[in-house]
Amino acid sequence: MKNHNIALGLEKAPLVLKNCNIVDVFNHRIEKNDIAINDHVIVGIGEYEGFLELDCKNMYVAPGFIDGHVHIESSMLTPCEFSKIVIPKGTTRVIADPHEITNVLGVKGIGYMFKSSIETPLKVHLMIPSCVPATKFENSGAEISNEDIYSLKNREGILGLGEVMDYPSVIHAEKYMMDKLKLMQDKIIDGHAPGVYGKELNAYLINHIKTDHECTNKDELLEKVSRGVYVHLREGSATRNVKDLAPGITKDNSRRLLLCTDDKHPMDIQKEGHINYNINLLIKEGIDPITAIQMATINIADCYQLKQVGAIAPGYAADLVIFDDLNNIQPSTVLIDGEIVVKNNETLFKTTSLNKGAVTNSVKLNPDDIDLTLTLKSDYVKVMKLIPNNVTTNKVMRNVDLENGVYVNNPNDDILKIAVIERHHYTKNIGIGLLEGYGIKNAAVAMTVAHDSHNLIVVGDNDKDMLIAAKTLHECDGGLCLVSNGIVIEKLPLEIAGLMTSKGYDYVREKLLKLDEEAHKLGVNKEVDDCFLSLAFMSLPVIPELKLTDLGLFDVIKFELVDLEGE
Amino acid sequence: MKNHNIALGLEKAPLVLKNCNIVDVFNHRIEKNDIAINDHVIVGIGEYEGFLELDCKNMYVAPGFIDGHVHIESSMLTPCEFSKIVIPKGTTRVIADPHEITNVLGVKGIGYMFKSSIETPLKVHLMIPSCVPATKFENSGAEISNEDIYSLKNREGILGLGEVMDYPSVIHAEKYMMDKLKLMQDKIIDGHAPGVYGKELNAYLINHIKTDHECTNKDELLEKVSRGVYVHLREGSATRNVKDLAPGITKDNSRRLLLCTDDKHPMDIQKEGHINYNINLLIKEGIDPITAIQMATINIADCYQLKQVGAIAPGYAADLVIFDDLNNIQPSTVLIDGEIVVKNNETLFKTTSLNKGAVTNSVKLNPDDIDLTLTLKSDYVKVMKLIPNNVTTNKVMRNVDLENGVYVNNPNDDILKIAVIERHHYTKNIGIGLLEGYGIKNAAVAMTVAHDSHNLIVVGDNDKDMLIAAKTLHECDGGLCLVSNGIVIEKLPLEIAGLMTSKGYDYVREKLLKLDEEAHKLGVNKEVDDCFLSLAFMSLPVIPELKLTDLGLFDVIKFELVDLEGE
Repeated sequence: MKNHNIALGLEKAPLVLKNCNIVDVFNHRIEKNDIAINDHVIVGIGEYEGFLELDCKNMYVAPGFIDGHVHIESSMLTPCEFSKIVIPKGTTRVIADPHEITNVLGVKGIGYMFKSSIETPLKVHLMIPSCVPATKFENSGAEISNEDIYSLKNREGILGLGEVMDYPSVIHAEKYMMDKLKLMQDKIIDGHAPGVYGKELNAYLINHIKTDHECTNKDELLEKVSRGVYVHLREGSATRNVKDLAPGITKDNSRRLLLCTDDKHPMDIQKEGHINYNINLLIKEGIDPITAIQMATINIADCYQLKQVGAIAPGYAADLVIFDDLNNIQPSTVLIDGEIVVKNNETLFKTTSLNKGAVTNSVKLNPDDIDLTLTLKSDYVKVMKLIPNNVTTNKVMRNVDLENGVYVNNPNDDILKIAVIERHHYTKNIGIGLLEGYGIKNAAVAMTVAHDSHNLIVVGDNDKDMLIAAKTLHECDGGLCLVSNGIVIEKLPLEIAGLMTSKGYDYVREKLLKLDEEAHKLGVNKEVDDCFLSLAFMSLPVIPELKLTDLGLFDVIKFELVDLEGE
Repeated sequence: MKNHNIALGLEKAPLVLKNCNIVDVFNHRIEKNDIAINDHVIVGIGEYEGFLELDCKNMYVAPGFIDGHVHIESSMLTPCEFSKIVIPKGTTRVIADPHEITNVLGVKGIGYMFKSSIETPLKVHLMIPSCVPATKFENSGAEISNEDIYSLKNREGILGLGEVMDYPSVIHAEKYMMDKLKLMQDKIIDGHAPGVYGKELNAYLINHIKTDHECTNKDELLEKVSRGVYVHLREGSATRNVKDLAPGITKDNSRRLLLCTDDKHPMDIQKEGHINYNINLLIKEGIDPITAIQMATINIADCYQLKQVGAIAPGYAADLVIFDDLNNIQPSTVLIDGEIVVKNNETLFKTTSLNKGAVTNSVKLNPDDIDLTLTLKSDYVKVMKLIPNNVTTNKVMRNVDLENGVYVNNPNDDILKIAVIERHHYTKNIGIGLLEGYGIKNAAVAMTVAHDSHNLIVVGDNDKDMLIAAKTLHECDGGLCLVSNGIVIEKLPLEIAGLMTSKGYDYVREKLLKLDEEAHKLGVNKEVDDCFLSLAFMSLPVIPELKLTDLGLFDVIKFELVDLEGE
């Protein structure tokens, strides 16, 4: 009754935004008007009076931005702390795939992300990670079975199935994958099909996979759109596709295009922006600002069937972003559910810390079990060659020094020992390989962020520092650390699943800057922008060419574990 | 597995459409390619081989057209017979509101429409009629309570709640209406808000009403679209809005626009077309053909959240329409679920007749109870003035002839007696009024199609013919009939709920032509296009100005029953 009376102008609204330039994503125009809000919801657009009136002084008011696909864990922040850096950038809602924490903790990880997201105004929808573990050539902390998926699919907060990365299994209709997709036919299924075209794309899509965020060029975008795919234009930290995809956008196909970040480093979010950065990039590429805003609002709501979301209209969620320049969107005020959560760039909301007991103590290994000795039958070996700022590696053949059949570091050859130590099940598994092009001296770096199984990865020129680095992360429940000459130079504990800290952005930023600065001082290749992030994908066995898991060296092209020795 | 092998080109498809000009509703372009089909579904677009190949010779292939809002009963045909006239026009799916049969038979009527629609290839989604009866000032055959709605909402075939016509109750938040809308918040809710603007529109929409098919001008369309409404552009028999709305269509807002017929006479369908006629009208008004096709396909699928429908893409339903002229769409071949149902204009599908026992015998009155004597206290009375080819009437004041206080027809004054006889519950209710501008002599017409309660309506210049007409309809279980000088000139029995015949289109056409021709010969105003349809809305008490129900004369402006005598 109250909503109706307010809508009719018979009662004052609790809150009215006066003098707005409303971004109308339906008619694609700007409408000068007031917005009346009551009880989380927009109840009227027109001339209204409110008990509280916020004069927008002809600033633009847009629907809150939505990140269509994000792994929150990549920010190293909890959902609460993540929300503190993205809400001020205008992001009011995210579709999150908790793939990382689920690789460590399984269903418990999904539960943690769900519960955490209740403690923040940021609206978090979850997709069930579809490919945990990513391959059978590694040990992750948990598996997500089809039974798990079945038991989760109708739970609150769950929208559908997360990115189906194992696209060969889909294309070739492997039974376990068909069963999984069938299970989720009535929900949204996110895709992940880099460079899949033509008949393989047809085969990938027939089981109702609805989205893709791996397009890297205009032609790929156009073909996928034609085949019914909603295409995410991704701008993360390591993967930056917006500029390359912009030429594929037309007035006619833009309704099928969405924006996402996928994986974005917290310092990049703070510096560049979040989804507003994708929008601003598109505007710079000549895309109409309202078209770009549609991709971050109503288009995502349409694709993910979010009701009464993504637009400014009666009955819609009062998630609103206010800014003064339509061509370079820097929000100054943000509302979520009708509450002013950011006002004139000042954050007004608080979040509650969740008891994190259940998601800590995830580094399950005995440091005394770690033996980094690398015995080789030949000195002619396969080496992973790091490509700076890239998630792929090259496979190169090198001669290395041996002493009694055991590898020893040669300070002149730019090759380091790298190890992936299983840290979920006390298996004592250690995969040991060699890495070229990283370049640290008298030191080691280690981290428990190591995609996708998130074992403990450690790189160094001497076993002593490597062992101290591994022990240090064991003691602090995971994280990032740098050790030199037996001394822990710096560390960032990530006690939640070894992936996230419950501390805030400022703490993380300080630690990351110090870690990176000191690592570079200790000789890490200057071309490498981020000394730690660049190692996090060395263990991901679905991205070419040569990778390392806890089971050993993995040739991604052959898709099998291989010996170091020989070609 | 088979679908994947076909998609990959490893196995031949059972059916391939070769050399298609595919209407790509996603990228808004024409793509030359083949379409491979297996097991109801499109499995591939590309170069394919099939066991059966249909050479489309560069004709256009579009997704099957959808009628976004239709009352099938208005065709006087069962869903099976209706499908035989609309499928050849390219309509492969309809969103039907069985409002008419439900007013007669309640939940049983919905069940009949659902079961009938299984017997035809036409895909029929049903909305639960929301306003049965339309008002409390009349007796319909049944009521649909909120309990009924609750028990129906999750049944197979049900999409949501049908057009919420009682917009004043929504705007003013009357409790029974709020309860009804709350009940259906998780489903689609269709709207019906003619001429509702501004704050009243806001109040109408806050409870998630999603569509409207009552727009009559560009400004109304633009405002409703801005407020989040999906707007249907309707082209029925009596209500023709497409041309007036076309100027409101832009490249940017067209995704929020849909096409529908609402109520369309079977002869108009046969002559003009069905949804393809709406498309062709838009093209004539300068709208791009693909934009118009989107409004009949993917836009409706988006609005009603129909999965894998409304486009030509892998995994989508193989509902396809083939035609040679993109600027005047006259389908020659139609596929539904991958079956060729129309080929080179020849209908290939058969339908099964349903046992109609449960939906006949709906004319429940005793003819001997009918007394058409109209006693008046004054000769100065309110008269309903028929406006040719319009569903509204004017209220006019006239002096009429009385004999001993009883109305008698004056052959010189163009005024006829009109009666609405309750025919659902043996109540013996008869509402009697006077109608100007219809003009029959020595005759009577009667029909059981009388919106929305579908009582028996009869008009004539003498009681004897009127009584015979009523008795005739009682005997044949409802329908239309014409009586003159005591003789039944012609009748069309509509034995299903008094609304539909189980016979086919040709029979209905012959009867309707004869009825109309004879009625005109007997003096019906030449300006009246359809002697029967024009009477069907005389009993609808929600459309101005003066109407007649079984409870008596109804002043729609005052929204109350009134006496005939005096102003």
